[in-house]
Amino acid sequence: MREIGIGIAGFGTVGGGVISILRSHAREIEARLGARIVVRRVAVRDPAKERMVDLDRSFLTTRYQDLITDPSIQVVVELVGGTTEARALVLAALGAGKHVVTANKALLAFHGDEIFRLAQEKGVDVYYEGAVAGGVPVIRTLREALASDRIQAIHGIVNGTTNYILTSMAEKGEPLAKALAEAQRLGYAEADPTLDVSGGDAAQKLCLLAQLAFGARLAPQDVLTEGILGLLPEDFAWAKTFGYTIKLLAVARRSDGGTAPGGLIEARVHPALIPADSMLAGVRGAMNAVLLRSDALGPTLLFGQGAGAMPTGSAVVADIIDLSRNLVSGSPGRVPLPPATPLVSLRSHSEIRTSYYLRFSVKDAPGVLARIAATLASRGISISAVQQREHDEEGVPVALVIVTHEAREADLQAAIGEIDRFDTTSAPTRLIRIEAV
Amino acid sequence: MREIGIGIAGFGTVGGGVISILRSHAREIEARLGARIVVRRVAVRDPAKERMVDLDRSFLTTRYQDLITDPSIQVVVELVGGTTEARALVLAALGAGKHVVTANKALLAFHGDEIFRLAQEKGVDVYYEGAVAGGVPVIRTLREALASDRIQAIHGIVNGTTNYILTSMAEKGEPLAKALAEAQRLGYAEADPTLDVSGGDAAQKLCLLAQLAFGARLAPQDVLTEGILGLLPEDFAWAKTFGYTIKLLAVARRSDGGTAPGGLIEARVHPALIPADSMLAGVRGAMNAVLLRSDALGPTLLFGQGAGAMPTGSAVVADIIDLSRNLVSGSPGRVPLPPATPLVSLRSHSEIRTSYYLRFSVKDAPGVLARIAATLASRGISISAVQQREHDEEGVPVALVIVTHEAREADLQAAIGEIDRFDTTSAPTRLIRIEAV
Repeated sequence: MREIGIGIAGFGTVGGGVISILRSHAREIEARLGARIVVRRVAVRDPAKERMVDLDRSFLTTRYQDLITDPSIQVVVELVGGTTEARALVLAALGAGKHVVTANKALLAFHGDEIFRLAQEKGVDVYYEGAVAGGVPVIRTLREALASDRIQAIHGIVNGTTNYILTSMAEKGEPLAKALAEAQRLGYAEADPTLDVSGGDAAQKLCLLAQLAFGARLAPQDVLTEGILGLLPEDFAWAKTFGYTIKLLAVARRSDGGTAPGGLIEARVHPALIPADSMLAGVRGAMNAVLLRSDALGPTLLFGQGAGAMPTGSAVVADIIDLSRNLVSGSPGRVPLPPATPLVSLRSHSEIRTSYYLRFSVKDAPGVLARIAATLASRGISISAVQQREHDEEGVPVALVIVTHEAREADLQAAIGEIDRFDTTSAPTRLIRIEAV
Repeated sequence: MREIGIGIAGFGTVGGGVISILRSHAREIEARLGARIVVRRVAVRDPAKERMVDLDRSFLTTRYQDLITDPSIQVVVELVGGTTEARALVLAALGAGKHVVTANKALLAFHGDEIFRLAQEKGVDVYYEGAVAGGVPVIRTLREALASDRIQAIHGIVNGTTNYILTSMAEKGEPLAKALAEAQRLGYAEADPTLDVSGGDAAQKLCLLAQLAFGARLAPQDVLTEGILGLLPEDFAWAKTFGYTIKLLAVARRSDGGTAPGGLIEARVHPALIPADSMLAGVRGAMNAVLLRSDALGPTLLFGQGAGAMPTGSAVVADIIDLSRNLVSGSPGRVPLPPATPLVSLRSHSEIRTSYYLRFSVKDAPGVLARIAATLASRGISISAVQQREHDEEGVPVALVIVTHEAREADLQAAIGEIDRFDTTSAPTRLIRIEAV
């Protein structure tokens, strides 16, 4: 039986998952593929380290170079993480004419151009299902199932850590610090959760999705990115009274105007109020989901586990199998790589239009609401609903919440800047965008 | 540029969608595929009939045979419907070495064996994404993304007509007849809705899913099938008090025991109480969703529009593109067809174990509950919750609802048979299975 030789770089959680899935499903994979997938080498930093999966030491090497020079390895699986070593390894593998499977979103978000260009040149494949939303087959769906459709919008819950925290805040009324500590205790959040809670991780994933969906070429710093740190339990309570819940959304959508052949898109990651009865509102805990809206299909939602040894490992193995099918049938490059030149341009963040939830902290004095309303009106922002919390003592700051109709981000920011300078405003206004998903 | 010749049989709703998508996305498809997809012939019953999509009459033929004999047609798209003509056409196309795309679930549920066998023999492909859940990429996900995983269970809402009706009943408290009439008025239900409301349509789709997920070979008549006709508004009200909603589910899952190499599965279509906060409970109106549970991925949910010209048309076009990629890269048969011999056997329906919702119609007399409880207990069925509705007049039948712990179907049916013969029972007991999805 034909053998497909695999070299794996990195033997952490996902690497262990990959090896254990390849091993436990070897017979089924052989039967379906008509070939055997054989792990030839595993490159690790510390060969002496205890591993969750048993592997003969003779497979281990400390030099990535050994994967590149081994002629019996056709597919290099990059599970090193980070962008420096991983980039060098992937470029070397592609340069040597090897196919690459990776689950490294940061690598592709920051260096995708270079990597896809070299892969194209060498006529080899790069597969990366595990890089976004773990085992949820969103990359495959965008590359293949939606090949005949025109996508209008992506709304993703693509960071399990923040979704776990926001679910706890919504369902238990917990403050963020407590929900975060609990997520850390359960292993859903890292000791340093910055990349997750800042929205940075979600922005990296959004770059990969927007590339496949729209032919965009974005770097994470191009994405309007706001994290979850300013959210208070009362925001969830207010949201509920208006029929919403709060999720950290990664949004990319077509927008009017622009001169690029594919038009304009907008790209942003931020907490958003979404209708409490929407499918995305039902995505709880550490789960992930991506909602695609396209001309022919309408809405399509893909939901599942976004992280973990087995879910991400399974996505990596599905990619290895897909690549192996290409090798067996002599059809590498069967599904084209993302386009080399951007098809769309990015709308300026200040031109984004959404509805807004605004929570003002104001002194309870006559005329405060009137002045805020007048300021909003002067910028062309119209109000859809107002609620104010009862207060006990005179002079104590009270919460005033306004939900606006659709407005332009720049107008909104200008109005808030003005309102935050009022002497009746006791703390910066909290703004949360509203998405009708 | 290379051309892939397509012949389409059937020019109804979906056929119109396919032609319109191929036309409006021609440029993108060419760019991504590196080949042009060209519709050579369209076979129709009545060439004079008015069509939603404009097509030059010279493309039309009334003879399916013309698609088979045309050497410039490599892919035959079967959109005729039914099983007689469609079967003859598909077998003739495969026999002539042509690849087939179909959205015909009944054809594959009843004649899949014959069709896949011939395709295998001839080394050609059969693609059928549109046959289950319209544009939701569930077939592709089962064939490819989950190739490395072992699936444990499928829970599908795969019939939009019944889901529309059940959503109306749940949300508006409407009786079934009214919800059905409304569905007919809006085009979600046909004039003769039998195949949908009986569960027959969902059972056909379940056969296709179980084949891909488990290597089962089921005919629709093998599936335990119960429709929605006996459901009353009060069932939804009771379900709500217990924290559930009611959906028509198509269920296939691995079960203990059996001697087949892949073990036993159970396969059933019936209304089910499911937790009100589950993702499937959020699938409203005519939408479809399939929840897969597998060893590595855990739960994966795929959600979208299950029917309609554009969603199903889009699935058919995605299949045409996929097949065309195989042709361009010289790799037909790249993804194996379903296995020719069954890998699993089917558990007897009487051995199924679930929890049950039981609504008894009983006369309000002393000792009725005690007698029912004793009968259940005598069959080893234990009670998890009991509720009884207040009544106004003595002697009027009252509703008594019991939720059981997990029990064996045969025991449950025997107990109900006994209870329904009590002189205090005024109407047959309504049984609804409970699924913890």
